[in-house]
Amino acid sequence: MEEQLTIESPKNPRVKAAVKLRKGKVRTETGHTLVEGCREMSRAFESGWRFIELYYCPELYLAIDEDQLVSKIRLSGVPAFRCSEEAFRKMSYRTTPDGLMALSPLVGKKLAELDLPENPLILVAEDLEKPGNLGTILRTADATGVDAVIACDHKTDINNPNVIRASIGTLFFMPVAEASTEETLQWLAERGIQSLAAVPGTEQEYTEVDMTRGTAIVVGAEDEGLTEQWKNAADIRVGIPMLGKNDSLNVSTAAAILLYEAVRQRRKVR
Amino acid sequence: MEEQLTIESPKNPRVKAAVKLRKGKVRTETGHTLVEGCREMSRAFESGWRFIELYYCPELYLAIDEDQLVSKIRLSGVPAFRCSEEAFRKMSYRTTPDGLMALSPLVGKKLAELDLPENPLILVAEDLEKPGNLGTILRTADATGVDAVIACDHKTDINNPNVIRASIGTLFFMPVAEASTEETLQWLAERGIQSLAAVPGTEQEYTEVDMTRGTAIVVGAEDEGLTEQWKNAADIRVGIPMLGKNDSLNVSTAAAILLYEAVRQRRKVR
Repeated sequence: MEEQLTIESPKNPRVKAAVKLRKGKVRTETGHTLVEGCREMSRAFESGWRFIELYYCPELYLAIDEDQLVSKIRLSGVPAFRCSEEAFRKMSYRTTPDGLMALSPLVGKKLAELDLPENPLILVAEDLEKPGNLGTILRTADATGVDAVIACDHKTDINNPNVIRASIGTLFFMPVAEASTEETLQWLAERGIQSLAAVPGTEQEYTEVDMTRGTAIVVGAEDEGLTEQWKNAADIRVGIPMLGKNDSLNVSTAAAILLYEAVRQRRKVR
Repeated sequence: MEEQLTIESPKNPRVKAAVKLRKGKVRTETGHTLVEGCREMSRAFESGWRFIELYYCPELYLAIDEDQLVSKIRLSGVPAFRCSEEAFRKMSYRTTPDGLMALSPLVGKKLAELDLPENPLILVAEDLEKPGNLGTILRTADATGVDAVIACDHKTDINNPNVIRASIGTLFFMPVAEASTEETLQWLAERGIQSLAAVPGTEQEYTEVDMTRGTAIVVGAEDEGLTEQWKNAADIRVGIPMLGKNDSLNVSTAAAILLYEAVRQRRKVR
C-alpha cells in the first residue's frame, strides 16, 4: 500500500515555503505560485495544467467534489500531502479555505510566444493594483473570446494567488503575457494592431470606433487611469459616456464595456 | 471658545455603538449606519446628505482634504468628536482607515417614493451577497443615468458600510429602494415597465432587445443567478454571449454590459 505523505506541523518546511510565496519576489525567484480552491484547481487541471505538489485537508472540505479532484490529480502523478487543519490554514490565503491547494509553476508567456489569429482582440491592462480587478478582467476576457491578455508594467503580477482566485482559474487557459509598455507598443505596431485607450473625458465614444479589425483595448490603473505614455502612444483614445455625478468607472467594468462592444461589432459583421 | 468633543477610550459608548452597527439587525433597529472615508463622506455631504455625528482622527489622515471636510461638516451643525487612534481603529471597517467616519441615517426609499421620468431605466439586483458587487453596480448605475436601483430580497442590505464604500458614495445621491420581489413585480407592471432578466444560456442576446422603452434590467446572485421566480416572471429573458470556457460573468460586469447597451440604444435614437 502506498505510504501517505502528510504535513502535520505548521512549522513544516513546505508550510513555510507556501507562506513565503505571498511575496511576488519569492514567486519570481522560485518560479512557483499557489493555486487554492476546488473550482480554481479543477479549471486548471482540466485545461491540462500540471501541478508540482498537492496539499489537501479533508476536515476543511466544503463540498463533495474535493475527493474526486484529489484522486484525479494524484493519479496524474502529482505528490499529494494530507495536511492537518492547522498547517493548511497557515498556508491558505482565505478566511474560509476549502481544503485544497496546489504548488504550481508560474503562469504567463512572453509576447513572442503568443499565437494570434487574424484581426485579434487583445486586452492590455496597465498597472492594476487590485488582484480582484485583474482576475475579473481575465474572466471577462475569456467570456469575450479575447486572443491574449497583456499585463503591462504590472504592480499586481498575474501569479498573485488572489488574481488566480478572482479569475476563477481562467488564468490557466487564457494566453496571458507580461511585458513592458515599450515592448507591447512595438509588438502591436509590428502586427498592425490598433491600440484603443480608454481615457475618461474623451469626446469620441467607444461605440463610434471600428473594433472589427485587429484591436488592443488598453485600460489603466484604478485611481489614476492610463499613464501619459499610453495615452499619447495609443492609436485611438475613446471615452465611455458618464451620465451621472461620478467621473470614472471601476476598471474591470470599463474593460467589460469595451470588450463587449468589440464582440457586438464583430458578431454583426460576421 | 468651543469645547472640543473627544473620544479617547476604545470602551467609549460611541465606539461600542459603532462596532454594533456592523450587524444589519442593529442598523435596522437604530435606523443608523456608518459612512467611512473622505471620498465617500464628501460625496454624501456635497449631495446634501445630513450626518448625525462626525468622528475624526487627524493621526490617521492620508491626504490633505480631511481638515477641510471636517470644518465644513462641523459648520453645518453636526457634532464632531476627535478620536484617539485606538478608538478610531476600533470603530473602523478598514485595514487602512483615513481618519474620517460619520454616523448617518439609513439610506433607501420605498418604491412608492421613487420619482420616475418617462421610459425610465431601472436596475433590479436580487439577492446579491457581496457588498463590493452591489457597490460597483451602484457606481455603474450612476454612470449610466439609471433612474432607480431596487435591491430585491436583499442578503446584502444597501446600508452595509462596505456597499457604501464600493459605491464610493454614489449611494447618497442615487434613488435606491429596497423591496420584495412581489412588490417590485407589481410596481413594474403597474407602470408598464418591461423587465429584462439576465439568464445565462438564453438564446436571445441582449443586443437584440429594445431597451429604449421603460426597462428594468434584473440581475441575480453571484453564484446562483436569478431565482426561478424572477426568471419566470420577467417579460424578457436575455443572454450575454459567452465565447470562452466559463459559463458566467461577475454580476457587476453583467449589469454594466446590459446597462451600457441600454445607453447605446437610447443615445442612438435621441
